[in-house]
Amino acid sequence: MAKFTTIEGGVVAAKGFRCAGAHAGIKRKRNDVALIVSDVDAVAAGVFTQNVVRAHCVIANERRILGGVARAIVCNSGNANACNGEDGASDDARMASLVAERIGCNADHVLTASTGVIGVALPLDRIEKGIEATCASLQSANSDGAAEGIMTTDTYPKAFAVEVELSGGHTVRIGAIAKGSGMIAPNMATMLCFVTTDADIERDTLQAMLSRCSWYTFNSVSVDGDTSTNDSVLVLANGQAGNTKIASAASADGAAFETALYNVCLHLAKEIARDGEGATKLVEVVVRGVAPPGNLVRTWEANDKTLSPEQRASFARSVAKTVANSNLVKTALFGNDPNWGRILAAVGRSGVKFEPSAVEITLAGHKVYASGQPTKFNGYVVSEALKAKEVTIEIDLHQDGGEQATVWTCDFSYDYVKINAEYHT
Amino acid sequence: MAKFTTIEGGVVAAKGFRCAGAHAGIKRKRNDVALIVSDVDAVAAGVFTQNVVRAHCVIANERRILGGVARAIVCNSGNANACNGEDGASDDARMASLVAERIGCNADHVLTASTGVIGVALPLDRIEKGIEATCASLQSANSDGAAEGIMTTDTYPKAFAVEVELSGGHTVRIGAIAKGSGMIAPNMATMLCFVTTDADIERDTLQAMLSRCSWYTFNSVSVDGDTSTNDSVLVLANGQAGNTKIASAASADGAAFETALYNVCLHLAKEIARDGEGATKLVEVVVRGVAPPGNLVRTWEANDKTLSPEQRASFARSVAKTVANSNLVKTALFGNDPNWGRILAAVGRSGVKFEPSAVEITLAGHKVYASGQPTKFNGYVVSEALKAKEVTIEIDLHQDGGEQATVWTCDFSYDYVKINAEYHT
Repeated sequence: MAKFTTIEGGVVAAKGFRCAGAHAGIKRKRNDVALIVSDVDAVAAGVFTQNVVRAHCVIANERRILGGVARAIVCNSGNANACNGEDGASDDARMASLVAERIGCNADHVLTASTGVIGVALPLDRIEKGIEATCASLQSANSDGAAEGIMTTDTYPKAFAVEVELSGGHTVRIGAIAKGSGMIAPNMATMLCFVTTDADIERDTLQAMLSRCSWYTFNSVSVDGDTSTNDSVLVLANGQAGNTKIASAASADGAAFETALYNVCLHLAKEIARDGEGATKLVEVVVRGVAPPGNLVRTWEANDKTLSPEQRASFARSVAKTVANSNLVKTALFGNDPNWGRILAAVGRSGVKFEPSAVEITLAGHKVYASGQPTKFNGYVVSEALKAKEVTIEIDLHQDGGEQATVWTCDFSYDYVKINAEYHT
Repeated sequence: MAKFTTIEGGVVAAKGFRCAGAHAGIKRKRNDVALIVSDVDAVAAGVFTQNVVRAHCVIANERRILGGVARAIVCNSGNANACNGEDGASDDARMASLVAERIGCNADHVLTASTGVIGVALPLDRIEKGIEATCASLQSANSDGAAEGIMTTDTYPKAFAVEVELSGGHTVRIGAIAKGSGMIAPNMATMLCFVTTDADIERDTLQAMLSRCSWYTFNSVSVDGDTSTNDSVLVLANGQAGNTKIASAASADGAAFETALYNVCLHLAKEIARDGEGATKLVEVVVRGVAPPGNLVRTWEANDKTLSPEQRASFARSVAKTVANSNLVKTALFGNDPNWGRILAAVGRSGVKFEPSAVEITLAGHKVYASGQPTKFNGYVVSEALKAKEVTIEIDLHQDGGEQATVWTCDFSYDYVKINAEYHT
């Protein structure tokens, strides 16, 4: 395992990146525009929402990213620029060209992101002022202003950065900012993460690493089971570290870089779960002992004998995600209730076949269910353990093959309902 | 369409059935044991939870129902008799034999049902007293005591009955009681429905009708997306109406009977959604214009060219269920917020492919989204319309083939969290 060190600086920790945030007045008093600029052309990769309904920024970025090069990422919060007709597409292009004119680059080299209310025209006049303000205040000291500029219902800005040593004594840095924290709730959220690195890395290798890392981190987080129209993870690699170019994930440098990238994504993914709407704690769901298919089939895939490795991995994942998305499990966690029955019932409806009496469930380190019945656990003790700010649920199906998966979520409180019911479109 | 008339009497409306409820003191002050008895042997059919984790009553009933004959249904609330080890199986058998001894029948002709807390031993001494009390008070006047005996977090008892005229001037009656209203929440719920009829009907025909009717009614209801370990719908047909035996659903009498049975199930299914935990309103989600597969595939079934009609029907159903289970949609409905963006985003993650700009969304009779953008609807007017006790969401994908599906759910309020977080196991 490669060694990496946590450092300050967030999304501008890497060499040759500057950023800024500004208050454009789209919706509220906090910053609502963020800009990240690389001093030189960077290779760019991205992963995007799998929702059929996609915001204009997602549609445009998928095209832009094909070129493999970018100079900047511009983002507004308070308006998702989605489902608002054809004008939304030209508004998105206008956002990119406003930045391109000011920093002097091809408009297709500016990636865009929007998060907020769906179905409303983008207030371009305000965004133009916000872009001017950010261009005038770009700096490389810290991420704070930019991280605030992408927040919606997040309660705190999220940034992280690491440094990793590669061959030849070259040090590369990876930094990022991210936001959560519900689907589009309260009609404005979305998961966004912008990563910068000064590593010199081949574009397809970077894209493959980002896809893998996102699968095991951001795609393993669930706040409420809803998928936004705007979810995006973008990475810019500007090569300013002077390392030997990484051309393969299989090389020593490639492995070290991917481990560092994975840990940046993991840190921020867990921050997003921790800061989920109304959350009082971070919940980690670990599922073990799931047999590969053949022994085991999803009910509706019973006739499919040709599952890919990714589909196989998703058996343990299906179990973990079903538990992580169960309202009954999440409200019990909010109430510090060691309610293993709800967990077992959720496992039972996850579409995976298993023998109920073989299952073991461990809550916050206490085994509560085994051999087909509850253990003699002390309910008071387990309830006290569930009051921690980080709680792990471990579920072992004890099947041959032993595949496992981990996902992160949060508990489900009154404040989730408050945030999502009391806001009015 | 056959004519049927709503009548009084609930689960004892049909000839030759008696019932009673009693307070056995399992958990609380309301009745917690219910007994339904047919004067003569009845043909029996049932549908059960698809959860891999199943209560002892479900496992036993699946075996008992193979015989096709039953005399009685006994149910307790307050304890699910599930996931509590091997003793649970003998406790379930004991419940059946206690009834069998008293009414004089084969113990395998007594169907059992339990609903309540998971993982706790059944208090057989109390249940025995409850069974004695119900056996001593069987009557054919009304369902009230029995309907109360199966309730958990339900706020009111649910009963319904109809009368339908068949050939030769014979009138048959169908009555039922049911309960909701969460999965196992607050650690005690489950969907149960017990149907009685005096129709003379062939057993396999009855089972096929019950399976079909359940699919379009009980299986089309979702309160919180969680599936109980105890869900059961049971029907007893004792032939006391003296009609010509129904041996096919395709006959005129068969069609008339199935329509009546469907309407009994539909009525009670909607009652369960209306009385969902914390619900303030009944929500009907109607999805139209979904193309059959070939034009349209679920993402993870992309390679499956051999879908059955039932799987095909599930495309429109997938869309409807995804919307009906979205916490963001349901909290918006609680807040009377015409938040069509959350509905469209839920449709977009349902796994069905479609063109977003072709979609039309109508909320409580007001079209709010069409042609890829919001209509010029009056938010205040639509919000006022959403305050009704019954609200319909219509979603038209405008695809060829035009398949449709309807599901029922409820909104999502603070009280759902209260009920499920504040209760302690």
